Amino acid sequence: MKFQAVKGTRDFYPEDMAVRNWILQAWRDVSLRNGFEEYDGPIFEYLDLFKAKSGEGIVSELFHFVDRGDRELAIRPEMTPTLARMICAKAQSLPRPIKWFSVPRVCRAEKPQRGRQREFFQWNADIVGVDDVVADAECILVVLDFFRYVGLTPADCVMKINSRSLLAALLTAKGFAPERHADLYVVLDKRDKLPPEAYAEVLDKVTRSAEERSDLETIVQARGESGLRDLATLGRGNEAAEAEVARLRSLFDTLALMGVGDYCTFDMGVVRGLAYYTGVVFEGFGRAGLQRAICGGGRYDHLLQALGGPPMSGLGFGSSDVVILDLLNDLGRLPASAKVTSRLDYFVIDAEMSLFPVVIELTARLRRAGHGAEFSYRRQAIGKQLKQASTRQAAKAVIVGAEYRDRKALVVKNLATGQQSEVPLDGFPP
Amino acid sequence: MKFQAVKGTRDFYPEDMAVRNWILQAWRDVSLRNGFEEYDGPIFEYLDLFKAKSGEGIVSELFHFVDRGDRELAIRPEMTPTLARMICAKAQSLPRPIKWFSVPRVCRAEKPQRGRQREFFQWNADIVGVDDVVADAECILVVLDFFRYVGLTPADCVMKINSRSLLAALLTAKGFAPERHADLYVVLDKRDKLPPEAYAEVLDKVTRSAEERSDLETIVQARGESGLRDLATLGRGNEAAEAEVARLRSLFDTLALMGVGDYCTFDMGVVRGLAYYTGVVFEGFGRAGLQRAICGGGRYDHLLQALGGPPMSGLGFGSSDVVILDLLNDLGRLPASAKVTSRLDYFVIDAEMSLFPVVIELTARLRRAGHGAEFSYRRQAIGKQLKQASTRQAAKAVIVGAEYRDRKALVVKNLATGQQSEVPLDGFPP
Repeated sequence: MKFQAVKGTRDFYPEDMAVRNWILQAWRDVSLRNGFEEYDGPIFEYLDLFKAKSGEGIVSELFHFVDRGDRELAIRPEMTPTLARMICAKAQSLPRPIKWFSVPRVCRAEKPQRGRQREFFQWNADIVGVDDVVADAECILVVLDFFRYVGLTPADCVMKINSRSLLAALLTAKGFAPERHADLYVVLDKRDKLPPEAYAEVLDKVTRSAEERSDLETIVQARGESGLRDLATLGRGNEAAEAEVARLRSLFDTLALMGVGDYCTFDMGVVRGLAYYTGVVFEGFGRAGLQRAICGGGRYDHLLQALGGPPMSGLGFGSSDVVILDLLNDLGRLPASAKVTSRLDYFVIDAEMSLFPVVIELTARLRRAGHGAEFSYRRQAIGKQLKQASTRQAAKAVIVGAEYRDRKALVVKNLATGQQSEVPLDGFPP
Repeated sequence: MKFQAVKGTRDFYPEDMAVRNWILQAWRDVSLRNGFEEYDGPIFEYLDLFKAKSGEGIVSELFHFVDRGDRELAIRPEMTPTLARMICAKAQSLPRPIKWFSVPRVCRAEKPQRGRQREFFQWNADIVGVDDVVADAECILVVLDFFRYVGLTPADCVMKINSRSLLAALLTAKGFAPERHADLYVVLDKRDKLPPEAYAEVLDKVTRSAEERSDLETIVQARGESGLRDLATLGRGNEAAEAEVARLRSLFDTLALMGVGDYCTFDMGVVRGLAYYTGVVFEGFGRAGLQRAICGGGRYDHLLQALGGPPMSGLGFGSSDVVILDLLNDLGRLPASAKVTSRLDYFVIDAEMSLFPVVIELTARLRRAGHGAEFSYRRQAIGKQLKQASTRQAAKAVIVGAEYRDRKALVVKNLATGQQSEVPLDGFPP
């Protein structure tokens, strides 16, 4: 009777755990240096919270259950509902802007199959309570600062940026009534993700004429600086469109000022399917190899209100450890140091079995002084203990032997260089 | 329609999160310096895994659900089944001894009521694949090293240590057949936890005579050095009992050698209810105020085999963030630094609105260089921006003003001392 892990979950043996800690620590370091504060919520919430944000359809996509009081609960499939709930609960007392990040474990009830994870870690950062292009830029900056932190250059990945509100203004200008926009977003979002025939099929369902389809294509194909110029021309005279073009230009200027302009490009094809985005939207992609989205986010103006809170604008993004690790591994960019499982400064060795009590005492003393220290449970030859010290990736070996008996001294050996020297026990560790 | 957190769960607003990170980091630091490596598993497992370890009774104590394929899954209520499963899966290839720790989130389907958490973080450390008194001592040392790390002295808490195998040998010597021991452990474990009448009642159910009850009381009341001497006398001539007394003495000697003898005491009343302990068992308690167990563990010889693995002896313990925090708060020992939510080296301020682009550029550059840096989204007077810098707990303010326009210089103000000086932009940050 041997038990297995549930399909779609991961066991984190020490080396996998080291990598996971490395990536979560990178998320934390970068978030903190960008002025975000960390928060978290429970791993499960009332099922109704998730329904309120995403509709009844979400129920089949998450793990839900009842407690002893028959309350319907569910494991969080994402962090945004919890964030909104927490902000709503203290909306009056929290200082603005709220710049928060989180690195939650989230679970999704995918069908178990290869490559589909049913649980992963998701980096979230949000700026709530301010509707300003500088906040838009800051939210994108923190992602790009992370990319740079882990060695991903503009040659490796790109941040595609768009504005839902510019898209909305252009759609309205072209005669698409606002109540049709939500359906159009879902379809336009698929333009670059579906094969052309499949896209044509879903496009047919939300359009009424070839002219409408042609107008949509004119808009959604716009890319880069020239694409933004074309859309500016298209929207000339329309106040909303002109304002949104100006805001987008200001966003790109700010990102350039922040030193991350090289990563960023305008792309009207980035629509994002979720209904609640109302302003800037963005998605990061790997340029080579892995070409799926490695992060995505945008501005939401009405989400908090919909979940029972005050009217507050905010924006945020999510990214997953699985996708980031796939990209780094594809590029061979995961550093060897990310896999180190131990933090041992000293490995203490007895040259004679009778000195083992000294090894125990010294090891405990080293730990107490803040050093990583270890020893072997087996009394064996120095050579074997030295080998174990190397296996455990210790920096130095400390040998308790004749020098200790003769003159209370230790032999300290640097395991990287092989150099060794005798040091008096009194002044050890230095 | 305002949503609530599920009762028995906690929201971690930034200050709560800082405290949680502080305690988890302390667990990690101490575990690593004691030579343990971190691991983790999925948040949910097959329900059968938990049943295999704890019996059918566990089902009502955990959150369980089915996936799309109608497989029965459950959120982990503890870490040991996952640990056992992971070790079993790689039993042949893992180097021995396995010294692993984890700081998992675990969930229990308690009735929602005040003070009963339905999710918490649990520190686990285990040493598997070696049955040696030095490993027993190491497992206890890492807990005590943590106590000392967070400022808990032998005046604040005590580690009560016992041996299930000594208890078993004495029970057998007194005529209690081995097949009765499991039931006796459950009852004896309650001696110090129930009111005397309630204990007498459950004791009656597992004993057959006043003599048996008197024999049990003679054994289970033994405490401290004198108690161990009494039991040694009681067990004289019984080979198993003599061996176990000797091993316990060796354990206390080793703990003294490790510099933690002051925390440790022999206590035959620490039995622990779980059936699977076979050797040393221990529980930590606060001495003042909070007197419930703050950690507990022991040696298990057959657990891995029961879960489908090879015969491997191991020992481990668990402790919870909730109990540790309660104790530290009771004693007023939680340091103010544990609540710091930001890591800001610089807060960059514009003395004139036109210099705001310099603020943006400089802040991004500081972050890129690895410094925590922040600025205000609102263009306002220096005084207000300085106030915001203090609120955000920044170390220094950097003012971009006339000095910048005149000679490309910045004013750097230490917010703790109030001292300020002008530094050329060129050499900044130093």
